[in-house]
Amino acid sequence: MTRKITIEKKVLSENDRLAADIRQQLSEKDIVSLNLVSSPGSGKTSLLERTLTALNDELNIALIAGDVQTENDANRLARAGASNVKSIVTGGACHLDARMVSKKLNELKLSDVEILFIENVGNLVCPAGFDLGEDMKVVLISTTEGDDKPLKYPAMFRRSSALVINKTDLLDFSDFDVERAKEHALTVNGNLKIFQISCRTGEGLSAWYDWLRELVTKKKTSVISKN
Amino acid sequence: MTRKITIEKKVLSENDRLAADIRQQLSEKDIVSLNLVSSPGSGKTSLLERTLTALNDELNIALIAGDVQTENDANRLARAGASNVKSIVTGGACHLDARMVSKKLNELKLSDVEILFIENVGNLVCPAGFDLGEDMKVVLISTTEGDDKPLKYPAMFRRSSALVINKTDLLDFSDFDVERAKEHALTVNGNLKIFQISCRTGEGLSAWYDWLRELVTKKKTSVISKN
Repeated sequence: MTRKITIEKKVLSENDRLAADIRQQLSEKDIVSLNLVSSPGSGKTSLLERTLTALNDELNIALIAGDVQTENDANRLARAGASNVKSIVTGGACHLDARMVSKKLNELKLSDVEILFIENVGNLVCPAGFDLGEDMKVVLISTTEGDDKPLKYPAMFRRSSALVINKTDLLDFSDFDVERAKEHALTVNGNLKIFQISCRTGEGLSAWYDWLRELVTKKKTSVISKN
Repeated sequence: MTRKITIEKKVLSENDRLAADIRQQLSEKDIVSLNLVSSPGSGKTSLLERTLTALNDELNIALIAGDVQTENDANRLARAGASNVKSIVTGGACHLDARMVSKKLNELKLSDVEILFIENVGNLVCPAGFDLGEDMKVVLISTTEGDDKPLKYPAMFRRSSALVINKTDLLDFSDFDVERAKEHALTVNGNLKIFQISCRTGEGLSAWYDWLRELVTKKKTSVISKN
């Protein structure tokens, strides 16, 4: 077992080295980069579709959409207007790693890009352990998943900078308590910036768009905090 | 990288050896064992709560509830009437393995148990790779997660014997198409037994209970198929 641990550390530090390269590369180009993480089906792709529809004319957006299998998400994003989107099919792997992202960055047109979204594999556990060189992780949960998720999967909430609570339109049909979810999330990570949204009705999305605009502005004036 | 693969194989075969021991142990006692897998929040615990309420007087039920952190699920099951329930807190690990289950089996009262439910960590990827010695995996998805999940996470659906589509009460509020989800699931695994249920309204649960009763009867007459 000792040997196994040693080797895992080597893999991780190789990932960290590549992530640092990515961070440097994106930083030099003043690109805000967000790593979207959540359970399968919490609405990462829906949020990105909404964001593209709202901001595609205003901001220069690039996207990387990861999935275990299929390019469904990348196709959905292209249909929503994304012209600069690449897909990563992990072929079984439960998370994206920096090597996969680094490869795709070379295929994207990065000049003039202002914000890069990386949509991770749907998995609330493993992606927490892999730095992709992003400025921040944004974790999504939906109101149909149960409000105790931050306590049950704390690493992801601890390593994220923002929490998006999606599907507020379904609050009447579940026992999900938004205030309790926020309290649990803030117990794990008191610095979380929290959004309550519905990708279906559009509720709460203007605050999300404003935050993205603010990140882009801050990045250009180099005051964004690093991960 | 070659060395890493070799060691992973060793870990897996150690898991397989322990899983075979568990299968033998449960088989000798005529215990049906189901490994419940899904994304976080699809309703594994809710389904078990319903099952306990409906069948606890009729069948001798034991449960193991796994989570990354907290004993919330085991506590919920105890409140629903479970007297023979143990919790596994993986402390960060993204799946249960046979060693964890083997340890908990020693703590459960197994004599006269007819059915054992193992509630895995909420993760639609990694638990697919770990045999826990169960008769079958049962995969849950909910109607709020998107009907393309079987195509995006095929390994879990391929290795499961039954699919439970939960939260049918929310069908009117999402774009989830049950027929399309079933078609996708059967494309990946044509042998899946499929249930459509709502743990909230109780819809479809009688078929699930009947199936459990049938498994218990078959096990006692030794005609249940092995994983």
